[in-house]
Amino acid sequence: MNTQGDNCEPHRPAHPGIFTMREAGKSDHHSAERCVDFPVSVVLPAGGTGERTGLQTPKQFCTFLGRPLISYTIQAFESVPWIQSIVVAVAKENMDLMMDVIQRFKHRKVRVVPGGSTRHRSICNGVLALGEEERPAVGRPKVVIIHDAVRPFVEEDFLCKIAMAAKEQGAAGAIRPLVSTVIATTSEGYLDHSLERAKYRASEMPQGFTYDVISQAYQRCSESDFEFGTECLHLALQYCGTNAKLIEGPPTLWKVTYKRDLAAAESIIKETLSRSACVITGGLAEAVNLADALRKAVSALDMELDVVPDLMGDNARCLLKEWNFIQVSVSDSCLSEVEAILVALEAENRALLHPVVVIWVHFSRTDELPVSERAPTAIMELASTAKHRNILIYGIQLKQSKHWERSASRVAEIASALIRERSPALVGQLLQA
Amino acid sequence: MNTQGDNCEPHRPAHPGIFTMREAGKSDHHSAERCVDFPVSVVLPAGGTGERTGLQTPKQFCTFLGRPLISYTIQAFESVPWIQSIVVAVAKENMDLMMDVIQRFKHRKVRVVPGGSTRHRSICNGVLALGEEERPAVGRPKVVIIHDAVRPFVEEDFLCKIAMAAKEQGAAGAIRPLVSTVIATTSEGYLDHSLERAKYRASEMPQGFTYDVISQAYQRCSESDFEFGTECLHLALQYCGTNAKLIEGPPTLWKVTYKRDLAAAESIIKETLSRSACVITGGLAEAVNLADALRKAVSALDMELDVVPDLMGDNARCLLKEWNFIQVSVSDSCLSEVEAILVALEAENRALLHPVVVIWVHFSRTDELPVSERAPTAIMELASTAKHRNILIYGIQLKQSKHWERSASRVAEIASALIRERSPALVGQLLQA
Repeated sequence: MNTQGDNCEPHRPAHPGIFTMREAGKSDHHSAERCVDFPVSVVLPAGGTGERTGLQTPKQFCTFLGRPLISYTIQAFESVPWIQSIVVAVAKENMDLMMDVIQRFKHRKVRVVPGGSTRHRSICNGVLALGEEERPAVGRPKVVIIHDAVRPFVEEDFLCKIAMAAKEQGAAGAIRPLVSTVIATTSEGYLDHSLERAKYRASEMPQGFTYDVISQAYQRCSESDFEFGTECLHLALQYCGTNAKLIEGPPTLWKVTYKRDLAAAESIIKETLSRSACVITGGLAEAVNLADALRKAVSALDMELDVVPDLMGDNARCLLKEWNFIQVSVSDSCLSEVEAILVALEAENRALLHPVVVIWVHFSRTDELPVSERAPTAIMELASTAKHRNILIYGIQLKQSKHWERSASRVAEIASALIRERSPALVGQLLQA
Repeated sequence: MNTQGDNCEPHRPAHPGIFTMREAGKSDHHSAERCVDFPVSVVLPAGGTGERTGLQTPKQFCTFLGRPLISYTIQAFESVPWIQSIVVAVAKENMDLMMDVIQRFKHRKVRVVPGGSTRHRSICNGVLALGEEERPAVGRPKVVIIHDAVRPFVEEDFLCKIAMAAKEQGAAGAIRPLVSTVIATTSEGYLDHSLERAKYRASEMPQGFTYDVISQAYQRCSESDFEFGTECLHLALQYCGTNAKLIEGPPTLWKVTYKRDLAAAESIIKETLSRSACVITGGLAEAVNLADALRKAVSALDMELDVVPDLMGDNARCLLKEWNFIQVSVSDSCLSEVEAILVALEAENRALLHPVVVIWVHFSRTDELPVSERAPTAIMELASTAKHRNILIYGIQLKQSKHWERSASRVAEIASALIRERSPALVGQLLQA
């Protein structure tokens, strides 16, 4: 059954761009910077109670790899250079928690305002706050983007489309095809009729409005709208006569709604962090050979390797780019190399937003005891300390043998599993390839 | 930030019952058996190409822990005693693959028919096949349930509701609240109007029909319906005048549509397999103490432990119930105990549908070398063989120490991570607690 395979993922779909833009060193956003030459701010209503996930913690504060969902969403906007400020509206009881998140993950563009009792009231508070900006450098925005705190995977390209269309048309919103047929029900719970799927769309987020349209809409709308409405595009149409431009968004815009969505979000985040790794060889011939064999083996596992002798000079770019490091060592007391990586990572504050994986591959030339007796204890101790700093250290031992290719592919398989799973429970273990 | 926590899962939502019914030894289905006293068959259209996941393999054949999604869905129906047969309609090019799945996972109630070029044609082929049953013991069904191959988490309770309502009303279907506002668009891509969310529902699966209604509907419907339609409830209304009874289903009915849904499905399956484990103590005092400490520690990790001295007599029930075994050993050459578990699991064919995890916890009383030098090699060899039989073996070493509780909670943490992740790459490793 070779068409099956647990991965099942040939051509990758469009993917969350929250890391790619910065991390991959791309400068695709130059075009966006050119096109968005007016001030844009964001309102994130985040007062939800998360009842549909069946969880006590509101969804936006559920953590993924140690960081709350809302921080991922904020990060997605903060990394867009033409977005000047982000207003988050949270329930009073979560105010302290929100301030803590901002401080802990060093968010820079965020203001927090009290949420209202409904979604519209929260958004309205956010829009009002944009009209009363305190910092003189930040003017009233031309365009306001409204998004959900629980849609973390929004990309700059799409934000640019929404901002441009909003400026031109007054309002713009993301849509997606309907997944299920929509039906009208009778009051007794029977089928009345089904809608023709092709004529309808699901209204998603983000949506964009000129500041004038959205602030007018909220000034004019009724108490009933505030209480029972949810759709900003509807308010713009009804109270400002603005027909929103609708733009089909990518599937990654989806909203974390049910418990299963938490698992999906975690999986996307982990996959994004696992696409590549940096192998540090120390320049030793054996390590270079192993790195070459690893490169072949991991490419079959859909991961890319950068191979460098060290992290000095130009190679220090790996520190800024990668979330995963594989240190190959042929000496038997070389945890000092791993310690050096830790120091470099901390200097760059690289483990602030995501846990970084460091794998020590110990490669012994002879058939003697593969590592010194102290090694298991030493790596466990080092890993325990590093874990508190969001760096996950694992070890792999490998003996030189006739089955060279097989050993390299075992190392690749284990390293790839450790990187993908990022399990805090397994740090400090010395595994056998 | 103690409201956060990576799990974030206090009161569990209703969960996929595909294993629970049988595995947990519940007999909740007695009520269902009483209520459904008429013949019911199932049609599963499975001719989709999976283009929305962005994958080459059609979604229904993507594997989870080594088994294709469609086999999970079939299993959900096969485990319901009052369902007499299941007809799967697959594209001609996937016929061999489907037959292979049926044989490999020993599905018993399934017939395969060729799918059509559209969803309605595939369902129609399935319904026609039910009218021409070859086995004399299986009569024409009173009620036909139509479901999607890519909705694996359907539960008996809900199937019972659909079958009963279909028998009474002629047709019945699952509905869910709309997640997004539905909007009508103008031909130029602008907002026309938004629908009042409360009046509409998403039409989901399963749906049920009396055999007479669904077969008549397909006899009378037009070529255009066959070509462009997707909604069976609509055909029943239009061609038989049958207003379907609509029943709100649980969120677990969701359809695997996008790539993120594959991750969510895998996570649900893994979680379902990780709820409990059986600890085998050999009756030794130290092992019993460790088991007690483990029980406390894993309950904080949301897992339950059954503790038994062995798998003999009445304790053999664990073999039928559990997917996870923890063998505690105080001797230094006790892989024979693990070997005995493997033999017992194979005798029961327990690893046919899901990989079973067996963890060998080696517990040494003194400060001497914790296990014999041969142990790492022996467990790796045993694990390599067992892996081919879908049994995943891992080892954990534990030294008796003053910090007894801390050690037990380390074992619990590692065992729990191994059980949840079920990583094939890490089998045979001897980890340090």
